[in-house]
Amino acid sequence: MKEPGRKIYADNNATTPVDPRVKEAIIPHLEDKYGNPSSLHEKGKEAREAVEKARSRVASMLNARDEEIVFTSCATESNNFAIKGTAFARKDVGKHIITTEVEHDCVLNSCKWLEERGFEVTYLEVDEEGIISADKLKEALRGETILVSVMAANNEIGSLQPIKKMAEIVHNESNAYFHTDAAQVPGKMPIDVKDMGVDMATISGHKMYAPKGVGALWINEGLDVGPLLHGGGHEDGRRSGTENVPYIVGFGKACKIAEEECEEDKQKLQKMQDKTINELEERIDKIKLNGPRDLDKRLPGNVNFSFHGVEGESLVLRLDERGIHTSTGSACASDELEASHVLKAIGLGPELAHSSLRIGYGRFNEMEDVDKIVKAVEEEVENLRSITSVR
Amino acid sequence: MKEPGRKIYADNNATTPVDPRVKEAIIPHLEDKYGNPSSLHEKGKEAREAVEKARSRVASMLNARDEEIVFTSCATESNNFAIKGTAFARKDVGKHIITTEVEHDCVLNSCKWLEERGFEVTYLEVDEEGIISADKLKEALRGETILVSVMAANNEIGSLQPIKKMAEIVHNESNAYFHTDAAQVPGKMPIDVKDMGVDMATISGHKMYAPKGVGALWINEGLDVGPLLHGGGHEDGRRSGTENVPYIVGFGKACKIAEEECEEDKQKLQKMQDKTINELEERIDKIKLNGPRDLDKRLPGNVNFSFHGVEGESLVLRLDERGIHTSTGSACASDELEASHVLKAIGLGPELAHSSLRIGYGRFNEMEDVDKIVKAVEEEVENLRSITSVR
Repeated sequence: MKEPGRKIYADNNATTPVDPRVKEAIIPHLEDKYGNPSSLHEKGKEAREAVEKARSRVASMLNARDEEIVFTSCATESNNFAIKGTAFARKDVGKHIITTEVEHDCVLNSCKWLEERGFEVTYLEVDEEGIISADKLKEALRGETILVSVMAANNEIGSLQPIKKMAEIVHNESNAYFHTDAAQVPGKMPIDVKDMGVDMATISGHKMYAPKGVGALWINEGLDVGPLLHGGGHEDGRRSGTENVPYIVGFGKACKIAEEECEEDKQKLQKMQDKTINELEERIDKIKLNGPRDLDKRLPGNVNFSFHGVEGESLVLRLDERGIHTSTGSACASDELEASHVLKAIGLGPELAHSSLRIGYGRFNEMEDVDKIVKAVEEEVENLRSITSVR
Repeated sequence: MKEPGRKIYADNNATTPVDPRVKEAIIPHLEDKYGNPSSLHEKGKEAREAVEKARSRVASMLNARDEEIVFTSCATESNNFAIKGTAFARKDVGKHIITTEVEHDCVLNSCKWLEERGFEVTYLEVDEEGIISADKLKEALRGETILVSVMAANNEIGSLQPIKKMAEIVHNESNAYFHTDAAQVPGKMPIDVKDMGVDMATISGHKMYAPKGVGALWINEGLDVGPLLHGGGHEDGRRSGTENVPYIVGFGKACKIAEEECEEDKQKLQKMQDKTINELEERIDKIKLNGPRDLDKRLPGNVNFSFHGVEGESLVLRLDERGIHTSTGSACASDELEASHVLKAIGLGPELAHSSLRIGYGRFNEMEDVDKIVKAVEEEVENLRSITSVR
């Protein structure tokens, strides 16, 4: 996985390597266990059992019930499903949706698409650490609000939202469903949907050491959410399409590992994160930490800094030349020229918003990676600043 | 793959085994090549290159251009995308859609969902072989028809539709787009979207020896089709969601193999199909071939018979006990009690519609499988008939 002494992958908020234990779980389903879970014969039953075992593992990690888990192809699909599925099913109850300025593009663009179709969307502002005010959420709620969608952890700057408090407000003050995009959480810290008090939660395989191409939407019992994909009625009619058995099995394994090792993962990631933040601030001047400073309010492993006078993309490319893989922000938007909507939302001007570096530690990083990254960032920031004569 | 002397998998219209060459192509992307194609760094570029190489392979098989291929999670998603995406984008042009009675559930249920939202859908009838009349299509076309969706090959009874002729009529007589669900075609016979003259085509990984969980929609240049999944703007804004790199690579490999071996695959499948049809008819009385008798009008490898006085499900289970995996019809609908809508559409009454057996040969079957299957079917039909005292 890691190439010792040479390459360091520190872009785990974009995607994670596949855990070798997950790969091992997948392989038999790319070989002899190739049945269609809907088939009546032995090959079909074998596949069905594998899917249902995986479903139990996903449910267990989330502290949910098996039948509440709907497998999807990715977090983007889960978020489109939660938002559009609620909108289509509940349009006669109301047409108002609340979300935030710092959501992933798949939430924002699903909401925008609904705005073109007669829905009204409130985009909550965040404070300078990227955190939503529960009071502002309370003010935004209306009788016709059918859905509130707030991410659990921001993918760029790591802000953890006060989901439990917000869900309580939503349920006390309205009939809206509360959905959380929790794609960044599992594999980095514990997750418990019942304790959070939410109604729907999105999770993603490739953010937690399973492959890209599988995700899930947890939907609490009794909710009225329409399907996004219509067809043969798979997943209890909620998501049609032949099940991706190999990845579902791998995702189940990844959830089992995440459940068992979440405290260990979290502590290791926080140590690396803490050391990186402290050392970079100590060694480099004119830098700004993006996202919460208090690690209890921050996704374990996530580090995001802006460096005055440094172009973030140049820094990423220079680090890449040194074998260190990082990013400027969300991978999904990495090929866009526009500055991150998250950094704009926390009040960064264009210059600082374009000077960001995101370091995302994961399960396969080691403390020695931190030393190498800190040294490389220090040197390359200095190099880039000397070119543009900032300092 | 095949377990010689013991199990025979003959349910390749439900799903195919993964070709070992496809698995080999996938594995490195479950190991070290885990990058996110949108990432700027080396790991990202490596993944991007792999995705684009696969796109070329898919395009080449279809005789299309690379940029016209949109990767999806399955044929169900591709069909939902083609139908709803056209409906959303072209609703101001018209609200009439034409499809057929024998489409896959994902086409039919996407259409039904649109009917609930103000669209009008014409379901063309088929003849006793499951084939659409081009004249009836011509009659059904209107000024406000925006889409015609007709499958290339039926998944249950193998009927090949006169797609080229139909597409010509649609383009001469209307402004409608012509979409074809060609999920069953690649890997079994050649496919050429330009020769077919269609505007959109759905293909599916797991019907052509790639895994379950990847598909594509080919969209001809310049068409106005909206996305189904909104988000980070992947796939040129047409399908958001981090690309399933391992499966896309595997799918590309499967398309390369299908392109190179399509004539060989077809001839082998037709030989097995022909022999099965002839021998079953010779040995068993009171049986009815469902779908076209002329093999030029039938999907290679597909065999579907109804056996008077035999419950199809019982026959499938008895064959399964003998290590022979077949089905009664579409796997997607296998757990439903209702008779196949396809068998009803070709005029079968409830009794015959419930007495069907589908045998689907694939690349990994051998001629000796045919002998074993014919013998087992003959014996089990006799056994079942003796129990219900038919004969």
